[in-house]
Amino acid sequence: MISIDTEKNISFMKRALDLARFAKGKTFPNPAVGAVVVSSGEIAGEGATQACGGAHAEKAALVAAGDKAPGATLYVTLEPCCHFGRTPPCTDFIIKSGIKRVFVSVKDPNPLVDGKGIAQLRNSGIEVSVGMLADEAGELNEDFFWAITKKRAWVTLKLALTLDGMIADARGDSKWITTEPSRKLVHELRRCHAAVAVGRKTLELDDPQLTVRHVDGPSPARIVFSPDENIPSQNYFCTHAGESRTIVVVRGGAAADIITRSGIEFWYTGQSDHEASLNSFLEMACLQNITSVLIEGGQKLASRFLESGFVNRVYLFYGNKLLGSGKKGISFIREFPVSSSFHLEKIRFSQIGSDFLVCGVPVREPAS
Amino acid sequence: MISIDTEKNISFMKRALDLARFAKGKTFPNPAVGAVVVSSGEIAGEGATQACGGAHAEKAALVAAGDKAPGATLYVTLEPCCHFGRTPPCTDFIIKSGIKRVFVSVKDPNPLVDGKGIAQLRNSGIEVSVGMLADEAGELNEDFFWAITKKRAWVTLKLALTLDGMIADARGDSKWITTEPSRKLVHELRRCHAAVAVGRKTLELDDPQLTVRHVDGPSPARIVFSPDENIPSQNYFCTHAGESRTIVVVRGGAAADIITRSGIEFWYTGQSDHEASLNSFLEMACLQNITSVLIEGGQKLASRFLESGFVNRVYLFYGNKLLGSGKKGISFIREFPVSSSFHLEKIRFSQIGSDFLVCGVPVREPAS
Repeated sequence: MISIDTEKNISFMKRALDLARFAKGKTFPNPAVGAVVVSSGEIAGEGATQACGGAHAEKAALVAAGDKAPGATLYVTLEPCCHFGRTPPCTDFIIKSGIKRVFVSVKDPNPLVDGKGIAQLRNSGIEVSVGMLADEAGELNEDFFWAITKKRAWVTLKLALTLDGMIADARGDSKWITTEPSRKLVHELRRCHAAVAVGRKTLELDDPQLTVRHVDGPSPARIVFSPDENIPSQNYFCTHAGESRTIVVVRGGAAADIITRSGIEFWYTGQSDHEASLNSFLEMACLQNITSVLIEGGQKLASRFLESGFVNRVYLFYGNKLLGSGKKGISFIREFPVSSSFHLEKIRFSQIGSDFLVCGVPVREPAS
Repeated sequence: MISIDTEKNISFMKRALDLARFAKGKTFPNPAVGAVVVSSGEIAGEGATQACGGAHAEKAALVAAGDKAPGATLYVTLEPCCHFGRTPPCTDFIIKSGIKRVFVSVKDPNPLVDGKGIAQLRNSGIEVSVGMLADEAGELNEDFFWAITKKRAWVTLKLALTLDGMIADARGDSKWITTEPSRKLVHELRRCHAAVAVGRKTLELDDPQLTVRHVDGPSPARIVFSPDENIPSQNYFCTHAGESRTIVVVRGGAAADIITRSGIEFWYTGQSDHEASLNSFLEMACLQNITSVLIEGGQKLASRFLESGFVNRVYLFYGNKLLGSGKKGISFIREFPVSSSFHLEKIRFSQIGSDFLVCGVPVREPAS
């Protein structure tokens, strides 16, 4: 039996989550956070994380609440920070505002916070409850939590497949396997990632813009994975290098190193082995504040990331097509038996018009 | 605005459809029909088609209704027959019973009926309404309607695929890509078909029983497609040939011909070309009262049927696996571009535990 009070509290936290979702993609390298101040049962102020260096969600909500903050309740999707970063600690601001009670959805796993923000609030006499809608709030910032604790970029793999698992026909044509609503959702995914990446062959074949177009939001950094520095200079990737951070990841080199030429960053991974090179890239990306990367293919890049166990979440979009020939979406070098292949945990299905979307966390069964 | 009367009528027709569905698979070569007799707003009798030569649904329902039939209303999922077959015409029985009104869901496209049953009832003064829940009733017997009008067997293709479109790992192992609830549904599909078919390689590799096990119902005829007469004699298919009709379809031969040896029927298609041979088989099957065939693989048989345009409906079961290598489910000889590949019409999507099912009618886009 859920009390009316609990229902109300949940509805305010849901509103805070919506604010956070809306901010997602605009806050790199910070997590996206939403906050709501409630006074006498009414929302008195709302806020979300602003672009890097701007106000945090809690402060924005408290400023908006103004003189209604003293004695009010704060709902915030992530534990308030307690350290000086680009902005002063939010905990100080909350304590000074006279807030009486705080609902925190999830603890911030950032070692600089990690429960210390909650402790500070409690030590100052504020009542703090932790854990409301924690699953949703955790998933919303799973990429940030991963990056800050593992010191590696989070990887999302997106593929647009036919019902028989092809990403292109025999001539290499992939336009269009899925329909417009799916492609719009891909732009939503792009918006929520710090970078979008393809392999060089896809760059050569498709000349993708890798920008956010069908939805509002800033375009992410663009990455192409290449065996060497030679990128076709007439492609959108090179000709529009000034639009956003433009990166060529080159396997090999004496050590991990970054050299910028004509507005393009060349990242040498310092590793010639495929898997070791991807691993080095993920560490470099995190150091470079690229906390999340959306891999959009092609087959080789997708398969190497997946096979190496470096993919944190997959989005498989299935278009209503049966090709029967062409380019497979996934092709591993190693042969896994059915009994110890990859599967998806936290699997979710949805229908998008005549397309289907399967989303999940790829995990390999241990060999039996 | 639907009136209460209409709602009641629909509920009785739904009951008749349920009775028909339950009978499905037990009535070959007749369609599965359900009938309900309603007197004074109450169900007075119910019936469904019985095994070949047994009573038709209408007669069974009227017999059950007994002296409540005069003045009552009959709901029947298919137009009553008006010709002497294995049983006398149902129309005669309905007219004699004193039924006042008849709801028919769909007309029977059998040229021997095709509206003449409805006309007979009307001519005798019975009020007849046609078309209630026609889509459902039509789909329930789509295989019979196809066979009786086209003089060819209806073809359903079922494949169990990984999320990346594989039907087996690199060692040929397919156990188990999908989970038990999906496999149970496959047995339900088997129950509803007159025959189940595989290619010889699948017979050799998997030694399938091709029987109905996880659900109640008779096992269908078993078919293996083979380039010649040599079938491994130690397989279940041969050792249990007495259980149900057991057929080896052999491509080639001087003419379409059937020879029975040791309880196994050898069907020579009289055609050496793959597509022509399948075409000949579909005509032979219909003549042999095998009105529907469920193709269960492997890759080659599935792909040849699909590519030839001979598949009426596909069931694609996707198991929660990513193999990245192995045997593709579908592999066409011809290369179709994305713009004129096959797609599924009337596409339906459902989730079965961690599996998902895509069902539809395969249609090839005309080349643009």
